[in-house]
Amino acid sequence: MRIAIGIAYDGTSFNGWQSQPSGNTVQDHLERALSAIADDPVRLSGAGRTDAGVHACAQVAHFDTETTRPNSAWVRGANTALPSAVAVQWSSPVPDEFHARYSARARSYRYVLYDHPVRPSMLAGMTGWFHGALDLEAMRRAAAMLAGEHDFSAFRSSACQAKNPVRMLERAAVVRRGPYVFFDFTANAFLHHMVRNMVGCLVHVGKGRHPPEWILQVMEGCDRRLAAPTMAAAGLYLTNVRYDPRWQLPAFARMMLFGLAEDEA
Amino acid sequence: MRIAIGIAYDGTSFNGWQSQPSGNTVQDHLERALSAIADDPVRLSGAGRTDAGVHACAQVAHFDTETTRPNSAWVRGANTALPSAVAVQWSSPVPDEFHARYSARARSYRYVLYDHPVRPSMLAGMTGWFHGALDLEAMRRAAAMLAGEHDFSAFRSSACQAKNPVRMLERAAVVRRGPYVFFDFTANAFLHHMVRNMVGCLVHVGKGRHPPEWILQVMEGCDRRLAAPTMAAAGLYLTNVRYDPRWQLPAFARMMLFGLAEDEA
Repeated sequence: MRIAIGIAYDGTSFNGWQSQPSGNTVQDHLERALSAIADDPVRLSGAGRTDAGVHACAQVAHFDTETTRPNSAWVRGANTALPSAVAVQWSSPVPDEFHARYSARARSYRYVLYDHPVRPSMLAGMTGWFHGALDLEAMRRAAAMLAGEHDFSAFRSSACQAKNPVRMLERAAVVRRGPYVFFDFTANAFLHHMVRNMVGCLVHVGKGRHPPEWILQVMEGCDRRLAAPTMAAAGLYLTNVRYDPRWQLPAFARMMLFGLAEDEA
Repeated sequence: MRIAIGIAYDGTSFNGWQSQPSGNTVQDHLERALSAIADDPVRLSGAGRTDAGVHACAQVAHFDTETTRPNSAWVRGANTALPSAVAVQWSSPVPDEFHARYSARARSYRYVLYDHPVRPSMLAGMTGWFHGALDLEAMRRAAAMLAGEHDFSAFRSSACQAKNPVRMLERAAVVRRGPYVFFDFTANAFLHHMVRNMVGCLVHVGKGRHPPEWILQVMEGCDRRLAAPTMAAAGLYLTNVRYDPRWQLPAFARMMLFGLAEDEA
């Protein structure tokens, strides 16, 4: 039997999503908690391999088990055993053809940038930081140039293992709310560090170092060395994974991340 | 020379504001950082003695020093030495008659309640939690009954040291935004645990355990045992301290706590 689960976490204290010998990844903690409920080892496959320090409102994963439990056991039982910074949001039996990673049609990420003269403190670990004025209109124009199907090699990390660097970026939005600037992206999939590198380039445009068109030059150059520095992991949130409605996955409750609904920007 | 400073912090990892032998309070960390800048021991007086786990967008404190430093040294210098969860927001020379605590005319606190079937995870430590439906209109009516000058003994902790339990509560607002319910209070001063106890009672009203009028009964009974349990510290934020404009204190940047400006509810 295949079970899909929805998960939310504060990534600050974990070594990322993906299982590691350290045992301190989100996947490791979840596998231990779910194995105890199943009374049998559980192995998870996740939709998005978030890096250390990256957060999730809406991570999705699946596992196979021969143990029959009500959904409430997978959710509430696991949450009793999990660290306070991670919680299962829902669980749902799915057909065996469902795969959290390969069935995903699109992922959405939000980058939250605290734009303030003083570094973050009350929400340290939960936002990126930029100290200085940002031209929102210039960043919006540059973001619009990133949208569409492109080779995003210029925005991938040197450790990126994807064979094909072409991605379909269907949405790239920039919104300000008080001291926070939200960068919302939706794509079929993302390359390693792609969001944090795109935001780095948008901030370079926002602070007037380059005109909006420069971002096209970076993208077309397909060379990471032309781009801006990678933004800190702390500001990044996995906000949605989209699947075909036929899987009938439960909806996540809207987290209203920093007061702005995930699909509102 | 007397200097006023504004401070913001995530109280999760500190033993409250007030100095303690542990040395791990917000005041202790600030005094160490400022003493290093002053090259002389600095003793702080704060406007609000927040408890362990309580946060602040806008704490105010003052200290006396014979050392002359530019404002930027007190702010940026201290922030270099402080833990990431606390930062000085501004500093300003003030007349000797100014006192962070005794010159304060009013304090504002916000309680953020995450109203969701699953416990907090992505923002664990930064919100209170209630699992179930809440009648916002009933809570609003009850909150309105708390406003005004009253004896708030029913909402003080047994450890409260205030001689006079009468306070002037000038504002008590309840607002919902997505899964978050905000409780905003402004009073000349607050008794120990007063906000967390008032919110506990409002939640009892919200879940239908008592009608809104019950809160009057609790208040008039002046007996803590009649009230609801104290809400967790994690949801509480000191959002403003009001002073006479003649002190010319710098304004805090608006934090937009969870997307809602501190004065917007």
